[in-house]
Amino acid sequence: MDFQLLATELKQVIKTVPDHPKPGIVFRDVTSLMQDGAAFKKVIDAFAAFYADKGINKIIGTESRGFIFGAPLAYVLGIPFVPVRKPGKLPRERISQAYTLEYGEDALELHADAIVAGDKVLLVDDLLATGGTIDATTKLVRRLGGEVHDAAFVITLPELGGVSRLQQLGLNIFSLVEYSGE
Amino acid sequence: MDFQLLATELKQVIKTVPDHPKPGIVFRDVTSLMQDGAAFKKVIDAFAAFYADKGINKIIGTESRGFIFGAPLAYVLGIPFVPVRKPGKLPRERISQAYTLEYGEDALELHADAIVAGDKVLLVDDLLATGGTIDATTKLVRRLGGEVHDAAFVITLPELGGVSRLQQLGLNIFSLVEYSGE
Repeated sequence: MDFQLLATELKQVIKTVPDHPKPGIVFRDVTSLMQDGAAFKKVIDAFAAFYADKGINKIIGTESRGFIFGAPLAYVLGIPFVPVRKPGKLPRERISQAYTLEYGEDALELHADAIVAGDKVLLVDDLLATGGTIDATTKLVRRLGGEVHDAAFVITLPELGGVSRLQQLGLNIFSLVEYSGE
Repeated sequence: MDFQLLATELKQVIKTVPDHPKPGIVFRDVTSLMQDGAAFKKVIDAFAAFYADKGINKIIGTESRGFIFGAPLAYVLGIPFVPVRKPGKLPRERISQAYTLEYGEDALELHADAIVAGDKVLLVDDLLATGGTIDATTKLVRRLGGEVHDAAFVITLPELGGVSRLQQLGLNIFSLVEYSGE
């Protein structure tokens, strides 16, 4: 698969929203990509091609845009999809991990029986900015004995620090589109 | 496809959580189904088989468990996935629809360019209870000129009124598992 050509195609589909959610932020909008059926299919097929032979046995998607890319990938690979959710959303016994936001703190939760020791887990999300939620998700999986060496994103924004932050956690980062200084 | 056999299989996988989210409620937990890779795949394949020849050209999933079943179905059918989200989450021009909760009111939003006149839209969600969010989603799609005649659910709970409510809106309801008086 020609990932370079795919990146060029995807950049033509991903809309840019200036000053969202606040002035000075250039928002990369993956909903415009989902609205293009062919482009959406190519994204999932690219992830599947890259991870098909890497021994992954569970996909984790983080609420809620991570669900949109993680669930189809789990379907294609024929493996479980495990949601990581905001507090109070999961119904059964769960573990919780706090993380820091720009102002204040939030937390993410994972069902205690969703990961077992030795699981090889791939984390999937739409976009990697500062990496706070994926950092917290990695900790949740490891607390349950799961192995997590890989995280996949449609878009990475390396200037915001998430790529290096997650690499320091021992994660290999795979992404289809990278925006730097543009 | 033997939908009756599939229903029996799925009922063995879907866990029941008593007294969640409050005393007296029996919660049907679809995350246990997602944690079973084979069962999750069968659900998506069943939806795809049922809707393959019905002329659907867009899938809508409602935040956030609707994303987990709607996005893989859009992938299989090779058509766009359109998210309906809580207020303030979608970045571009959008329309909003209020709906009533047990206590108070909430709203859902849809990008104004996500549906065009004549679109044939399938709504997908995990579970149909009272039908409030799918009622609001139907109105959003129709306000943009989209046709919506079909809604698909993994689970329906007809005793809670959502099935008849959505039928009165002119929707055909398809579900894989129904719980009545059990």
